[in-house]
Amino acid sequence: MQVDTVIHARWIIPVEPDITLEHHSLVIHEGRIIDLLPTGQATAQYQAVTTENLPDHALLPGFINSHTHAAMTLLRGRADDLQLMDWLQNHIWPLEQRWVSEEFVKDGTDLAIAEMLMGGTTCFNDMYFFPNISAQQAIQHGIRASIGLVVFDFPTVWADNSEMYLSKAQALHDVLRGEPLITTTFAPHAPYTVSDAPLQKVLALSGQHQTPVHIHVHETRHEVEQAQADSGKRPLQRLHELGLVNPSLLAVHATQLNDEEIQLMADAGAHIIHCPESNLKLASGFCPVAKCLAAGINVALGTDGAASNNDLDMLGEMRTAALLAKAVAEDASAVPAMAALRMATINGAKALGLDKEIGSLSIGKAADVIAIDLSALETQPVYCPVSQIVYAANRRQVTDVWVAGKQLLKQGQLTALDIAALRGKIAVWQQRLAS
Amino acid sequence: MQVDTVIHARWIIPVEPDITLEHHSLVIHEGRIIDLLPTGQATAQYQAVTTENLPDHALLPGFINSHTHAAMTLLRGRADDLQLMDWLQNHIWPLEQRWVSEEFVKDGTDLAIAEMLMGGTTCFNDMYFFPNISAQQAIQHGIRASIGLVVFDFPTVWADNSEMYLSKAQALHDVLRGEPLITTTFAPHAPYTVSDAPLQKVLALSGQHQTPVHIHVHETRHEVEQAQADSGKRPLQRLHELGLVNPSLLAVHATQLNDEEIQLMADAGAHIIHCPESNLKLASGFCPVAKCLAAGINVALGTDGAASNNDLDMLGEMRTAALLAKAVAEDASAVPAMAALRMATINGAKALGLDKEIGSLSIGKAADVIAIDLSALETQPVYCPVSQIVYAANRRQVTDVWVAGKQLLKQGQLTALDIAALRGKIAVWQQRLAS
Repeated sequence: MQVDTVIHARWIIPVEPDITLEHHSLVIHEGRIIDLLPTGQATAQYQAVTTENLPDHALLPGFINSHTHAAMTLLRGRADDLQLMDWLQNHIWPLEQRWVSEEFVKDGTDLAIAEMLMGGTTCFNDMYFFPNISAQQAIQHGIRASIGLVVFDFPTVWADNSEMYLSKAQALHDVLRGEPLITTTFAPHAPYTVSDAPLQKVLALSGQHQTPVHIHVHETRHEVEQAQADSGKRPLQRLHELGLVNPSLLAVHATQLNDEEIQLMADAGAHIIHCPESNLKLASGFCPVAKCLAAGINVALGTDGAASNNDLDMLGEMRTAALLAKAVAEDASAVPAMAALRMATINGAKALGLDKEIGSLSIGKAADVIAIDLSALETQPVYCPVSQIVYAANRRQVTDVWVAGKQLLKQGQLTALDIAALRGKIAVWQQRLAS
Repeated sequence: MQVDTVIHARWIIPVEPDITLEHHSLVIHEGRIIDLLPTGQATAQYQAVTTENLPDHALLPGFINSHTHAAMTLLRGRADDLQLMDWLQNHIWPLEQRWVSEEFVKDGTDLAIAEMLMGGTTCFNDMYFFPNISAQQAIQHGIRASIGLVVFDFPTVWADNSEMYLSKAQALHDVLRGEPLITTTFAPHAPYTVSDAPLQKVLALSGQHQTPVHIHVHETRHEVEQAQADSGKRPLQRLHELGLVNPSLLAVHATQLNDEEIQLMADAGAHIIHCPESNLKLASGFCPVAKCLAAGINVALGTDGAASNNDLDMLGEMRTAALLAKAVAEDASAVPAMAALRMATINGAKALGLDKEIGSLSIGKAADVIAIDLSALETQPVYCPVSQIVYAANRRQVTDVWVAGKQLLKQGQLTALDIAALRGKIAVWQQRLAS
């Protein structure tokens, strides 16, 4: 049979089912995975337009970065090692107010997309100003994206008030509906920045369009204490009373969870987006990941923005997630390597409502695929490829990336994105933002 | 003036003093740093046999990995995600008993040295069986090393009883005394594996030879509780009563420290070797790094062995140290990037008693120097080179490494070590150890 692409790999880790195949091949046709079989059989059965031989590599589903503020790459390292409120109020927010524009979002998102593709991320779930521009850049570069339609109570560069955010959200949702690589979320920023009325409208829109609600929740103890002082309620309780704790909820951070809240989220089928490096860097607290997984909550993984991480490296984030969860659980067997890999792939797909389409190398799913070269000395010897990927590999070992069957990274080089032009733009932003 | 090497760099971060110089040059002659001056002046003043132009790079002192079991690279990923005692008793110790030999230590240490040099580590403080072999390999490859002369109460492949460990330690100390790149430590494994009598001898030897004492201390709560149950004393208290809590003490891990113990160590001038990734992976606990630094304790940084990390990557370890310390201190301004860089350089030098020789780019010190290319997209833009190095750079951005003025890594390639031969040996060990 004639097909588009056959990839012969030393190992294939489909994630679902939980196996590691050796000397197998992945067959891609018209953007989809159509077969997964031993290499001997593949060479007999398929003639491919493009054949890739990856003799030292593991092939796995592309990473899903489930929480980003992509354009903030331009602020990477601009304000580090500051207390949270100092960081936000005296640095990040004034810089954003002064500089965020369509051009900022375009160039910052391009830098993020380049960085993410080079590190094996094939889908990102974004939340930032000018989501129309983020979507446009994702479409241009061929990466899959879930675009957050942001909502605040107060004016920003994107809208003046909650009505305007919501009407822009609906309009953009409609515009993007036909895009094959783009989905959307309604993205009220946080319980403390969005009041009940717009949250109720978000709930209605989410139900109407079957679209997730992407929101920062219980990021810090301060947030929870402040809400209790102001209203007598913890934010999750308020969201629950509003009806938002449901299978569409993507609760980002969730570092402050008591046992009742874990049970509430598990019973409701809500999702947690865990951002361990951001939580550490901003001293936000520790998400009880092992407990949440044990309760049956779907926990996905995100890097957060580059201003609080400072990278968009899902290999690094998996590693931090696996390591930190053990220390927090006081159990070295908690969140093993495979659980971390699930968080970075299939769990992200489930959270975004895309698990029929992506998140594993399963026949029929879109061909969002990455290859990691394990022959580097840093990942030698190889007893267990998943262990080496999660605990030892670094992102420069990601060699090849396909999204919907299209190769976007080939032998470590981006195939389409113009890096020289991007560098020039970054240099201009650096000049502006440093001042 | 005619000199061996001049390196022109975009940035130079000497660590001491705490400045970042732009467009400066480092002048190396006969293995030592003899000048550090603006590039314009350097080109006028010096003729060099070798000139390096590093227009996108930061030049900094080589990293000092202050706690390793280098040869354990061969066990990387062999037994992950297990509870500590299961990991040790049912996996690591039986594998070591079956396989550790001079050949194992030779090949494993070679892999470690290759990995460390490629990641910018120019000095490592080791503790493992056959320290004679570790020393021999360090000498062969030209990396600086502090070799732990191990002591246990019980028999291992290296010695039969504490007398034999101690006599081998003294003999090896004498053999290595003249080696320019090698120093030694007395390395009783831990309070729970070495009894009072050999510890007293270690104390005497340490005083006699002005040599550090390198020991795992308060790694886990279990260790402390067990000691209290057995003897009524916490291990640090016992070491203090024996006289070992002094400026020669390198207390590795120290995840269990109460305020009195922090004060005790500060008053005594003892050092802590912090191994954050190992502590996370084995769920050992959290070292209160910010408190220790605030108390005035010198805290250095180590990766521990590759079986519990799973890499020997000091850039990654700095990042984890800086991030984790903030969360543990509940203060996002704790352990800023520069503090983490100090832990990985000058603090390591102080711990090892080598701060007159290494740990900063200071005139007169040995030329242990590394270059990191910050032009990669992942570290763009560059507002603050130290932030980008600690929070965003990955070890593949280390391009050049010199130890005592000799270039061991050039444009990312090891200059001397035979990687192909090493790969062959690793493959053989993988076969043996997987079984």
